[in-house]
Amino acid sequence: MYMNIPKSHPRYLSLQIREKLVSGFDNNLVAKEGLLAHGRGEAFDYLIGEKTTKSAKDAIKAASIMLNQAENSVISVNGNFVALCPKEIIQLAKITNSKIEVNLFYSSEKRKKAISNILKKSGAKEILGMNKKQSTKLKGIDSARRIVDKNGIFSADVVLVPLEDGDRTIALKKAKKKIITFDLNPLSRTAQTADVTIVDNVTRAMKLLISESKKQSKKQISFDNKKNLKITILEIQKNLKRRAKNV
Amino acid sequence: MYMNIPKSHPRYLSLQIREKLVSGFDNNLVAKEGLLAHGRGEAFDYLIGEKTTKSAKDAIKAASIMLNQAENSVISVNGNFVALCPKEIIQLAKITNSKIEVNLFYSSEKRKKAISNILKKSGAKEILGMNKKQSTKLKGIDSARRIVDKNGIFSADVVLVPLEDGDRTIALKKAKKKIITFDLNPLSRTAQTADVTIVDNVTRAMKLLISESKKQSKKQISFDNKKNLKITILEIQKNLKRRAKNV
Repeated sequence: MYMNIPKSHPRYLSLQIREKLVSGFDNNLVAKEGLLAHGRGEAFDYLIGEKTTKSAKDAIKAASIMLNQAENSVISVNGNFVALCPKEIIQLAKITNSKIEVNLFYSSEKRKKAISNILKKSGAKEILGMNKKQSTKLKGIDSARRIVDKNGIFSADVVLVPLEDGDRTIALKKAKKKIITFDLNPLSRTAQTADVTIVDNVTRAMKLLISESKKQSKKQISFDNKKNLKITILEIQKNLKRRAKNV
Repeated sequence: MYMNIPKSHPRYLSLQIREKLVSGFDNNLVAKEGLLAHGRGEAFDYLIGEKTTKSAKDAIKAASIMLNQAENSVISVNGNFVALCPKEIIQLAKITNSKIEVNLFYSSEKRKKAISNILKKSGAKEILGMNKKQSTKLKGIDSARRIVDKNGIFSADVVLVPLEDGDRTIALKKAKKKIITFDLNPLSRTAQTADVTIVDNVTRAMKLLISESKKQSKKQISFDNKKNLKITILEIQKNLKRRAKNV
């Protein structure tokens, strides 16, 4: 089936990234709903111009400082994130001394294991969220995402939550955690609730976050997430205006 | 798995529509790539406010007149379209005296049969695009979509192509056909190339197109698709502006 995309198709590259998700689905990493979520991401990526904006770069800088200064940072992973950039997850965890925890909205043991296996193959030593004896519940979440690891998200001060649902972000904020998120929709509840929202495709943003984190800046973070989101929305408006001219 | 969406989730309704697609996938109607395409649609639907805009209503009126005045109109269907509104497809075909043809980007005999079966269950008598002896090729398309029915799309004067890829729309235009499309992205090549672009969710727009088509207007069509698309893009910009205020 994958051979059927003709090279002449103008969305060939985008379709190829899409096939990464489809292949993640075939390998039990990605849920069916995860394919839909990626589609939403594609649309918003298209609207920001399929490149890392200035405001996303500023958010990435703030995120790198926050991760480096954390006492106990955790990178929460789901199937989509792992299907798109498993190696970058491991690299970022090493550089920022963060733990990695599997936490799924559409949870299943099979999918959790597939995700953990890919991460271990890519070089991860310990994957949290896999041992039921270590699990506890976060208040304020109805979905399977309430189940977290005592040594991971539950006791973390900074959590990186990519491609997230709003409920959990709010619950994590109530539990007094600093939240960094990747979310291509600047209007989503997660984007609005997080401390640092990186409105960018994870395949581009993770690489930049890794190189920023290598700098180990000791600067104070001065970052206004709401202001930055407004700038992002303005950037989308400008893109629409520019494109409308060519209609 | 479907039970796991808590009612308290603020996107509960949207998630339920999503499950329709997922269920279409489970019934072999929808391709994996179709789930992604629906996700993109969700994002654009969100940006137009998840309602039928004034400009979409104008496009629906023009489309109904075009279908009623056609000599040989064909409704081209794919898995997503059939998963979302099978009954409406049959109703529209009856009212406008249109044929129905299955035409898939990610083609497979299994999926074609599943789509045809659902349509027949919903009351369709004849489904074109199923008989290889009747098939021929359209020029200018590399994908499986080039294969069309001699008695259907190949000889049609008006074709309704929902949720489309740009290549085929352009090829159909080159073959001198009038094209009506549903496309939630007003900037897509399909949206830009079609004669009438309905920027709306098919689950809402099909109902309106059916009721408009019942009027059997004999009016001349006076519809400027490019102008209408510009109005739609302006509507999205306004929505973004309004929402940015509340950030």
